[in-house]
Amino acid sequence: MTTEVGHHHHNVDPKELTSVEAHLADILDRIRPLPPTQLGISEAEGCVLAEDITARQPLPPFDNSAMDGYALLASDVTGASRDRPVTLRVSGEVAAGDTGAYAVTPGSALRITTGAQMPGGADAVVPIEDTDGGVAQVTIRTAVEPGHAVRFSGGDAREGEVLLPRGTRLGPMQIAVLAASGHARAEVYPRPRVVVVSTGDELIEPGHALRPGKIWDSNSFMLAAAAREAGCLAFRHGPVPDDPLELLPAIEDQLLRGDLLVTSGGVSMGGRHDVVKDTLGRLGTIQFRKIAMQPGMPQGFGTIGEDRTPIFTLPGNPVSAYVSFQVFVLAALGALQGQQDRKLPSVHATVTAPLHSPPGRRSYLRGVLDRVDGTVAPLSGQGSHQVATLGKANALIVVPEWVVHMKEGDDAEVLCLP
Amino acid sequence: MTTEVGHHHHNVDPKELTSVEAHLADILDRIRPLPPTQLGISEAEGCVLAEDITARQPLPPFDNSAMDGYALLASDVTGASRDRPVTLRVSGEVAAGDTGAYAVTPGSALRITTGAQMPGGADAVVPIEDTDGGVAQVTIRTAVEPGHAVRFSGGDAREGEVLLPRGTRLGPMQIAVLAASGHARAEVYPRPRVVVVSTGDELIEPGHALRPGKIWDSNSFMLAAAAREAGCLAFRHGPVPDDPLELLPAIEDQLLRGDLLVTSGGVSMGGRHDVVKDTLGRLGTIQFRKIAMQPGMPQGFGTIGEDRTPIFTLPGNPVSAYVSFQVFVLAALGALQGQQDRKLPSVHATVTAPLHSPPGRRSYLRGVLDRVDGTVAPLSGQGSHQVATLGKANALIVVPEWVVHMKEGDDAEVLCLP
Repeated sequence: MTTEVGHHHHNVDPKELTSVEAHLADILDRIRPLPPTQLGISEAEGCVLAEDITARQPLPPFDNSAMDGYALLASDVTGASRDRPVTLRVSGEVAAGDTGAYAVTPGSALRITTGAQMPGGADAVVPIEDTDGGVAQVTIRTAVEPGHAVRFSGGDAREGEVLLPRGTRLGPMQIAVLAASGHARAEVYPRPRVVVVSTGDELIEPGHALRPGKIWDSNSFMLAAAAREAGCLAFRHGPVPDDPLELLPAIEDQLLRGDLLVTSGGVSMGGRHDVVKDTLGRLGTIQFRKIAMQPGMPQGFGTIGEDRTPIFTLPGNPVSAYVSFQVFVLAALGALQGQQDRKLPSVHATVTAPLHSPPGRRSYLRGVLDRVDGTVAPLSGQGSHQVATLGKANALIVVPEWVVHMKEGDDAEVLCLP
Repeated sequence: MTTEVGHHHHNVDPKELTSVEAHLADILDRIRPLPPTQLGISEAEGCVLAEDITARQPLPPFDNSAMDGYALLASDVTGASRDRPVTLRVSGEVAAGDTGAYAVTPGSALRITTGAQMPGGADAVVPIEDTDGGVAQVTIRTAVEPGHAVRFSGGDAREGEVLLPRGTRLGPMQIAVLAASGHARAEVYPRPRVVVVSTGDELIEPGHALRPGKIWDSNSFMLAAAAREAGCLAFRHGPVPDDPLELLPAIEDQLLRGDLLVTSGGVSMGGRHDVVKDTLGRLGTIQFRKIAMQPGMPQGFGTIGEDRTPIFTLPGNPVSAYVSFQVFVLAALGALQGQQDRKLPSVHATVTAPLHSPPGRRSYLRGVLDRVDGTVAPLSGQGSHQVATLGKANALIVVPEWVVHMKEGDDAEVLCLP
């Protein structure tokens, strides 16, 4: 392939730039976890544990059968085989959930189902496949060792053992662990509530007719969806024009609804058209910076309102806003849930076409990762306004600050998009 | 490492087994996509497109500036440099969202902000960083080619171009594409509604005291959470005892709520304790099989009720139920949304410890995948009841049917858990 992917770029003084790591550290430094709350386990999915979860009982809580078969004494079937089967009397049946007290005596067996409590006296289970399945008596065609097909109490977890440490995100498997260990509720950091506001005189709601000079707002929908995908509750506020008299009340209104605010647009040049930078910058709590990255160079972060609600002021270009969300906002959402290192999973892959990146800035280029081949193909159309290309990407190719060119066949770090 | 991971296993006649692929094919053969519906783009997240989405206008819809700077004629700054700057008259300003008609004449420039419509006559933009930022007149320190820093109409997508083909799952980036191309609604396959029912006399609701012989229900919580994680609406029905007179009405009640039903438990031996197999098997629409896999061998699939609602009858062991969900139910949920090949992403990794697998069956062993190192560590405690171990896994190691042993350092296919 001969297509080269990258940008033209201009005179940016490297001394004006803040590194991605420094900006991220400043963000995490200013975010405190949300107050933990008790949630039922059906509601706790996607939340992060604020407590260690321990086994209230041993798991399994009692010795039980791993298979459908016959509970017996292993010594009663010593030497049994297909050619030399052993026949035992069947004294009854114990099923999963049966709370009665059963016992096996030498020379007899008890029918047993998977999960049923082991009867007293029995030390092994012969699976039904190795028997004739008899009811009054059973012919057994295999010898077994003591403990065969028995799940011993505590074999999965001991009583008091930490099953899920504080800080664990609760997915389906962790919800299963909670339930299986008898926890109907758990102390968790709740899902953050995220409010998203697009700004810009040029924005029109989708579904309405465009006029020349206007474009349809996409950032607020995209960022709200990204926040939901990251496990948050998200609220979208329709586009706000470039007017301080409209922006400030809109932001203030949303403070009650959100644990974290995200704006897009109005942060680039710092003139009267950059209403976010101009208006919120005067409040003195938000730092506007040039970050050593592309896309996403001009953006801000700070806190706002009495509760010092975190606020991200992201660039207006859709790709810049999306990349900034994945690099910075995702980490902040983790911190709100008590996780200090939330980030996209990354892999290494071989790039299939040359790439360019500006000196001194880390590029995040859209690509299509093939996990099986271990390759990543940069997409053409890397302009930060090129939202159609964004819809085709499944990965971001990371080009470090000190690299200005990668060639076909080079190894790159790749962030896997959800 | 010397720990070996695997199971004891028993006489299973390979002829009785159905392959994973054959079972999956039978499932997909019987599932029809849900009726498509029009949803607003905020609601459509996670749904699958039932129509091609095309660009209603070129993207961008008009030529506009890629940067904050000055719109001008490139021929007016031929030869300009830091040492030999060129000064032009500034005739005004055009901002993003401005719908007025502007024009640039030779010898003059117009201040312009990112995203603003290119004025008539201008063919390039000089970024503000390459100027003195003047208001009445501007000194320009660089030459530019025509088209410099201009985003041309249609440069991201042409009018009528297919931006998102039918069958695309709508994540945040795709929601952005919909919005940016003016679509306020889209025709989508809706999120499937999944009803989950645990069965078994042994099951107690978490939060209630255990008695000997009883365990806390975890499958219904886990499977509902897994369905939600897969983008569905999920409803959990509390445990149903092993009694046909309770099971049948419970299932029938849920038919109205669900596009797909999942039960767990009661499918192993086929005796009177296997109430799911016994009761639903008599309806004649559900096939109970032994699948050539471990865990998850005994399970069933079919349709039920007037609407022929798909129903999975999964095994009662939590690990078996979870693996079966990811291997079979996930694919069925995809098919309900018009996707024929929905599955977990897979990678290859080096196993860090020996593994055993029964002959003729495909094993799915829980492991911890390290994406950076490209290794996968099998977890100890691979019993299908061992739910505590499940909470530590992030991957399933696939051991093919014809492999009974893998050694440390072998390459394995690994399914990445969400």
